[in-house]
Amino acid sequence: MELTERQKRIIQIVKENEPISADNIAKHLYLSKPTLRTDLTILTMTGILDARPKVGYFFAGQNFEPLLFEDLYEKSISEIMVPPVVIKKEATINDAVTMLFMHDVGTLYVTENQVLLGIISRKDLLRSTISNTSINKVPVAMIMTRMPNVVTLQEDERILDAGYKIIQHQIDSLPVISKDNPALVIGKVSKTVVLKHFIDEAMHLKK
Amino acid sequence: MELTERQKRIIQIVKENEPISADNIAKHLYLSKPTLRTDLTILTMTGILDARPKVGYFFAGQNFEPLLFEDLYEKSISEIMVPPVVIKKEATINDAVTMLFMHDVGTLYVTENQVLLGIISRKDLLRSTISNTSINKVPVAMIMTRMPNVVTLQEDERILDAGYKIIQHQIDSLPVISKDNPALVIGKVSKTVVLKHFIDEAMHLKK
Repeated sequence: MELTERQKRIIQIVKENEPISADNIAKHLYLSKPTLRTDLTILTMTGILDARPKVGYFFAGQNFEPLLFEDLYEKSISEIMVPPVVIKKEATINDAVTMLFMHDVGTLYVTENQVLLGIISRKDLLRSTISNTSINKVPVAMIMTRMPNVVTLQEDERILDAGYKIIQHQIDSLPVISKDNPALVIGKVSKTVVLKHFIDEAMHLKK
Repeated sequence: MELTERQKRIIQIVKENEPISADNIAKHLYLSKPTLRTDLTILTMTGILDARPKVGYFFAGQNFEPLLFEDLYEKSISEIMVPPVVIKKEATINDAVTMLFMHDVGTLYVTENQVLLGIISRKDLLRSTISNTSINKVPVAMIMTRMPNVVTLQEDERILDAGYKIIQHQIDSLPVISKDNPALVIGKVSKTVVLKHFIDEAMHLKK
C-alpha cells in the first residue's frame, strides 16, 4: 500500500500535535473536515493512527511504513548476496577446514578462474574427518558436491526464490551465477543472509 | 490491518462478478453507493481491488490478506519450535557425529532428565575431529558449549526475538526454555525453523 502525500502529511501533523481533533488536523491543512474523512479512516484502519472519542487522533504504531511484500520477498537477490569464500580444487580437506574456521563460514565454493566446480559444506568435511580419510592428502575435489548437482541461483532471482530453494533442498548456501556467463559464480546467498534480510527489514520498520 | 466483515463480503462479490461497478456491488449488499465509498477506497488503496474507469472493480492481488507484522514477527516462538535432538553427556564425540547425521540436524542438545547442560554444533564436532581428539573416548561434555554460556529463548518470546538472537550471536540454534522451570529445555528454534516460517507465510499469501 502506497500512502498519498496528504496521508503522510496527516501522520506528521498527528505525530507533532497528538492528541489532535479532526477539526484541527483539517485547519493545519487548510481543508474541510469532510475532505479528510476517507484519509483518516484509512489511517485508522491500517493501524497507523489511533482515534479516541472526545480526545482525538494519536500516532498508534511504531510501523510508520506498512510492511511491503515487495520489500520483504521480491527484491533481487543481488541486493543481499555476499562474496563467497572460495578454495582451489587441489586444496586438501585439512586446508578446507582451516579456511572454514578462518572465515567462519559454513560453505566453501570450489572454483577455478571464477568458474564454479562444486561446493563443500561443514557436513561434507565432518563426514571426511570422522572417516579414515587422509585429510592432509585428499583434495577437496574428491569430496565436494560437483556441478551440475549444486543448487544455484540466477542473479536476477528474488529473495523468495532463494529462501524457497534453501528450505526445499535443505541446504545452507546458494551460489549466485552470472546471467551473462552461467559458468561463473558472482556471489553467495546463505541461510544466514536471507534470515538477516528478514530481521533487518523488521528492525528498520520498528525504528 | 483487520478487514471488516463488509469489506470481506465486497472482496467476495468482486471475485465472483469482476468486472463489477460500484452500483452493482451496492445492489448485492442492499446498500447505497455512498455508503460503500470508504470501503472501496480502502480496498483499492491497499491493492486488494483494482478500479478501472468505466469498467468497474477487479480483484487485483494474489495477496488477499495483507502482510501482517504480527503474523510475520510477533507470533510466539512456541508456534514454530520443533523437538530438539538430545544426547547424554557421557556419549562420545563419535556417537554425537553419528546422531547428527542420522537425524540430519546441525545441533545436538546435551541433556539429563530434560535439564539442558549444553549444546554441540557441527562446528564443535569438526573442531574435535580435525584435531587429535580420541573421538571414541572423549565424552561430548568435554567439548560442548556449557550452560549458562548457551544463548536460549524463553517460551513466550517472539519470532523476531529468535531471529534477532540468531543473527546477533551468529548461531544456528536456540534452545527453548520452560517458563515454569528455567532449567528444562522444551523445544528448539533453529535458523532453518525461523527462515521456513518466513517462507511459509509468503507461500501462504501467494496461494
